[in-house]
Amino acid sequence: MEGGFSLKTATVGILGLGLMGGSLALSLKGKCKRLLGFDSHPPTLELALSKGIIDHALPHPQPLIIPEGGSQRERGVDILILATPVPSIIQTINQLPSIHPPCIVMDIGSTKRDILEAMSQLPAGYDPIGGHPICGRETLGLQNADANLYQGAPFVITPLPRTTRHALRITKQIISAIGADLIEMTAADHDRILAFTSHLPFLLASSLARSTLHATRSTPLIGPGFRSTSRLAGTPAHMMLGILKSNRDNMLDALHGMQAQLAELEAALSSEDFAKLESLLNEARTTYQSLTGN
Amino acid sequence: MEGGFSLKTATVGILGLGLMGGSLALSLKGKCKRLLGFDSHPPTLELALSKGIIDHALPHPQPLIIPEGGSQRERGVDILILATPVPSIIQTINQLPSIHPPCIVMDIGSTKRDILEAMSQLPAGYDPIGGHPICGRETLGLQNADANLYQGAPFVITPLPRTTRHALRITKQIISAIGADLIEMTAADHDRILAFTSHLPFLLASSLARSTLHATRSTPLIGPGFRSTSRLAGTPAHMMLGILKSNRDNMLDALHGMQAQLAELEAALSSEDFAKLESLLNEARTTYQSLTGN
Repeated sequence: MEGGFSLKTATVGILGLGLMGGSLALSLKGKCKRLLGFDSHPPTLELALSKGIIDHALPHPQPLIIPEGGSQRERGVDILILATPVPSIIQTINQLPSIHPPCIVMDIGSTKRDILEAMSQLPAGYDPIGGHPICGRETLGLQNADANLYQGAPFVITPLPRTTRHALRITKQIISAIGADLIEMTAADHDRILAFTSHLPFLLASSLARSTLHATRSTPLIGPGFRSTSRLAGTPAHMMLGILKSNRDNMLDALHGMQAQLAELEAALSSEDFAKLESLLNEARTTYQSLTGN
Repeated sequence: MEGGFSLKTATVGILGLGLMGGSLALSLKGKCKRLLGFDSHPPTLELALSKGIIDHALPHPQPLIIPEGGSQRERGVDILILATPVPSIIQTINQLPSIHPPCIVMDIGSTKRDILEAMSQLPAGYDPIGGHPICGRETLGLQNADANLYQGAPFVITPLPRTTRHALRITKQIISAIGADLIEMTAADHDRILAFTSHLPFLLASSLARSTLHATRSTPLIGPGFRSTSRLAGTPAHMMLGILKSNRDNMLDALHGMQAQLAELEAALSSEDFAKLESLLNEARTTYQSLTGN
């Protein structure tokens, strides 16, 4: 299935017009032939159409079912991008019909192993590839979509053995068009790393918020440090639950490791071993600087 | 010691011209009669003088020692603000001389019990009061000082039994002049709350950085979530060590409580009790929103 089209001549379909899908649509505007969008929430779809964020609404949540007599090139999409939460991406993949025009399917879900497992079962003719842009914010929804959200963000792709060079080429064009930085890795590596750099921070922020309420009662003294560290606790739980489920093994490791780190700090402080405490904190600072480039 | 002066007619001395002291000087500029500053690092003092951040350098790290024959009103300060790290504030208080003109002493250190204990031992004539503005950033130093740093920040004051109404009035004038919001509470309440809202976030950020390095090796996938949650890990350890030492009992509670929170999340995830997990995360989100007003 080495198709001849490029992004410029392609019809791109986006399923899920929330923060991520909506921002993707905004940043692909004018860089492909047509942008079709679908969202299960009718007001979101109406907003996307009225603001010109998409050219057309996909006729159905099953966008690849071509009505009898319809022209495939007219009605179908060349690239379908799944931009819903992880469980819904997997459900969509499992329900994609066998009858369809050739089509690249990319997702932008936050975990990759379960999604790639589902993708590997797709009927022949689908050309699947996993993707995950490392960006976002805790205020979700199309109303917060931003054409620059992907600018400079790492964008992981996790190809399958069946992923064609054509799909890889188009995916790279998309990532380049939205200004993100491509990183190719395995789904297993992706999920292990993201457990620490994304899902664990969310759980830390959430735990910090819960600890603090219990301890501070009526007069929380909130400064920029607390705001920064707890910010991710504002992410809706339903968004994160599917991610935590599908990355459960890595999350258990990460939570366990984090408790060990805190226990090590507690032991140094408890035994008044301030030299040890300082050395742990200095190591943390160096690590922070090397990880973030700050 | 009910002095007659107001902030406008006062000579203010600031000991420690780092981020906090330097920002305080910038935001008090023009709102008092004279601003004297001292810093143990000569290039900082030179920078402060050359940029006009202070009017004069204090003649000595012991600014209240008036040379024989010197005019007290000429050379002394009406309000001395201690803006160095906690251990150095305590050391300065312990070394303040008995010979001096009457003087309000306020500190802006990050913990309050140990500092108030030292203040309570000051010779008569000193009019001490504890203070702590809840703001800052992880990039320290006079070069990062900002006249707006205190704008809208909570500014805790912790009076001693001996603190006069005059000192309270002048302190309130200072807090109002720099645009901060005054909150009066006990040193014990302050230290307990700050353990959770400030010092624990630092330790979480540090532990996150250390965990992540071990887990992600060569390809950290760093997005805005990780940057936000780990940001405080960039704070120099020497700054935080004195704070952790002087708030050790509360920090041990906070670290312990945090491990219990993480263990609760781990148990729910491990037993696949996703209803429980969702309810914990929803509670965290509600708490975050009520604490931060987001």
